[in-house]
Amino acid sequence: MTEKATETKVEEAQTAALELAKCSDEVRSDALYAIAEAIDARRDEILEANEADVREAEELLEAGEYTQALVDRLELSPSKLESITDMVTSVAEQDDPLGTTRTARKLDEGLELYKQTVPIGVVGTIFESRPDALVQIAALALKSGNAVILKGGSEASESNRILFEIIREATTNVPDGWAQLIEARADVDALLEMDDAIDLVMPRGSSAFVSYIQDNTSIPVLGHTEGVCHVYVDSEADLEMATEIAYDAKVQYPAVCNAVETLLVHADVAEAYLPEVVGRYEQADVELRGDEATRGIVDVEAASEEDWSTEYGDLILSIRVVDSLEAALEHISTYGSKHTESIVTDDADRAATFMRSLDSASVFHNASTRFSDGYRFGLGAEVGISTGKIHARGPVGLEGLTTYQYYLEGDGQLVGTYAGADAKEFSHEEFDGSWTPGSRSE
Amino acid sequence: MTEKATETKVEEAQTAALELAKCSDEVRSDALYAIAEAIDARRDEILEANEADVREAEELLEAGEYTQALVDRLELSPSKLESITDMVTSVAEQDDPLGTTRTARKLDEGLELYKQTVPIGVVGTIFESRPDALVQIAALALKSGNAVILKGGSEASESNRILFEIIREATTNVPDGWAQLIEARADVDALLEMDDAIDLVMPRGSSAFVSYIQDNTSIPVLGHTEGVCHVYVDSEADLEMATEIAYDAKVQYPAVCNAVETLLVHADVAEAYLPEVVGRYEQADVELRGDEATRGIVDVEAASEEDWSTEYGDLILSIRVVDSLEAALEHISTYGSKHTESIVTDDADRAATFMRSLDSASVFHNASTRFSDGYRFGLGAEVGISTGKIHARGPVGLEGLTTYQYYLEGDGQLVGTYAGADAKEFSHEEFDGSWTPGSRSE
Repeated sequence: MTEKATETKVEEAQTAALELAKCSDEVRSDALYAIAEAIDARRDEILEANEADVREAEELLEAGEYTQALVDRLELSPSKLESITDMVTSVAEQDDPLGTTRTARKLDEGLELYKQTVPIGVVGTIFESRPDALVQIAALALKSGNAVILKGGSEASESNRILFEIIREATTNVPDGWAQLIEARADVDALLEMDDAIDLVMPRGSSAFVSYIQDNTSIPVLGHTEGVCHVYVDSEADLEMATEIAYDAKVQYPAVCNAVETLLVHADVAEAYLPEVVGRYEQADVELRGDEATRGIVDVEAASEEDWSTEYGDLILSIRVVDSLEAALEHISTYGSKHTESIVTDDADRAATFMRSLDSASVFHNASTRFSDGYRFGLGAEVGISTGKIHARGPVGLEGLTTYQYYLEGDGQLVGTYAGADAKEFSHEEFDGSWTPGSRSE
Repeated sequence: MTEKATETKVEEAQTAALELAKCSDEVRSDALYAIAEAIDARRDEILEANEADVREAEELLEAGEYTQALVDRLELSPSKLESITDMVTSVAEQDDPLGTTRTARKLDEGLELYKQTVPIGVVGTIFESRPDALVQIAALALKSGNAVILKGGSEASESNRILFEIIREATTNVPDGWAQLIEARADVDALLEMDDAIDLVMPRGSSAFVSYIQDNTSIPVLGHTEGVCHVYVDSEADLEMATEIAYDAKVQYPAVCNAVETLLVHADVAEAYLPEVVGRYEQADVELRGDEATRGIVDVEAASEEDWSTEYGDLILSIRVVDSLEAALEHISTYGSKHTESIVTDDADRAATFMRSLDSASVFHNASTRFSDGYRFGLGAEVGISTGKIHARGPVGLEGLTTYQYYLEGDGQLVGTYAGADAKEFSHEEFDGSWTPGSRSE
């Protein structure tokens, strides 16, 4: 590994970003296919490096400083590597996110405005100890023409190093320096200072961690914090469907941010529904904590005020009975994290009220909260799930890594012509068209 | 005027924002027509308040603490008020920016994802001493369903108060509290702390001012700083066109951010072009500062290193001769502020290289930099010209004040069905369609 200063790495990334922005989709996609091939060819090296990380994590596990779930997330296997190369290939196959004309507008005869998608530039990313995260983030950055600074969890350092080396060595057809690895916490602090060079920081982690980043940089931040997601079982719900959705949303993969943490149940159906769903959860050993009304119907532990705003990330669920749709909305607005909420109801108008009243990135009707994911949404993959509201929300794929520029093609137009007493009028007509060099004059 | 604490005002705005988001376009537009009518009906009151501001500014002008240009920007007149009401009406007439389906995608049979435009929520704005800015920002916020905190320049305080009062009193059909006025600098500091309540801050002002805001808040910032804009006259330029564009870009309105500050001239045409354009500028008393090569051809003052990164905002222009298109790009990348640049050339490929190589929000071919403006771009009006790259770039109109939510309509789908050994495949087909309540089940 190189021992370059963070400043040098960021400068290299800046230079590479300007060149990468001009590479064709074919060149960027070829680089991605090369990454997939190289990962496949060098499986043994990767698994060996990963074993070293896992061994160290297991020692920490024995010392009680680590959880089994974290070790599981860290560990790679041949089949996990295969799904990583599949992901890289699928990113390569996505439509080019760059050079698209989002709007074409004729301002006047011979004066045409094009809103063109372009890369953001240099993106700094800080993510948790899952080695597949490094590959996924690098792949999405490359496809969208961005240079990327990668900072993974220290527990995955051996895995990250070999994966980074493979990615760099495989991508000789794009400008060198487009990907940079930093490893120390001090390097993150250096990065946060470089607001002239870095265009966006994307931290994934706890709400406290993302707040720390936001408080310590003037670079725009696209944060991925926890999800306190809700399923609300309405008075008009199909209760069988509600049981299946509530079960899937918690049990199918409890460690992730789009798993449900609180189940809200309309009072009208609580007596019929709760014994059913609780029986189902108990089969999967889910620990349940309910409010008083819930505990009047089923035998569960008492929930505390703190429970309502907790992301358990585990087989634990809180349950609350609410008197109305409005009370459910009030609960979610008070305790939720604006990630993903789902209503189960057969009444389309009540569903629409739920969806329109909530300020969450994803709001579902009759579907599991677990669908809130870049792959399932059809974005190819995701760099994270944004819990902010600016630039990109919810699962962030290629589009979230782009911005736009305005191109104006004229033949000598002056603003003076369109001002003052004899001002010429603008026509401002949108038209179907894309910018190509000299497109106006054709 | 009310003496409520900033915290109270922001809380009121938050409550109003949730309700305003649900108001129909008709309701929001009616409120805008009511504003236009009220401004028209209460012209005399507005002009009287404005006169008080202007009187005070003129005293400062006499004391040498103020410039005539600032007094001019502050002063309202019956015709300026008419253009303000025209602007409000034109914002009302824009297409509804909310509730639009940006993408509709079938994830599988009976499982449909809609990406819906929604308001951002509560937007804090800090702007300069131009009373028309308050009305323009409030109008755009209202049309896009956002609550807005308004902080204008203290020199315009009397004008801002009456305009704010008129706006509030005229908009009784939308949730009260959607617009809030703050006046003291201390209130701005309080606002910057409220990252839980405010979704976006939009400061307009100097680069130092916007940096101060960015350094002192963890709220996302959409900054509008200065424009160091360039016109590059290429070796393949139509020199007559280049003279007209360079003249219009500087002289038509030198005080604004999209006026040109530096003229770059290809060495091949410098001898033919410079005497021509300098003669033209001298007619308008433009003060010219050139590099050595320029001064070898025309008689102008010497430009210093500092000139290249200065926004004069006045009838002053720096001129530099460059040896190549690449040298022009290098100059702009080094000294520019990523606002607006224009190339004058008859060669479409050279124009395309210029446009693709620059990282500025707006890049023009054969047109004046002064076109970089929300109204001229056909956005109806603008809350500012973003010099950042995240969320919105260049002139920011209604679209820049929106974000999106994902709505998913299902009939009981579980993620478990799409995972594991017998995983069902997603279809991920985009289709033409918009979300309406219960749209999936139709």
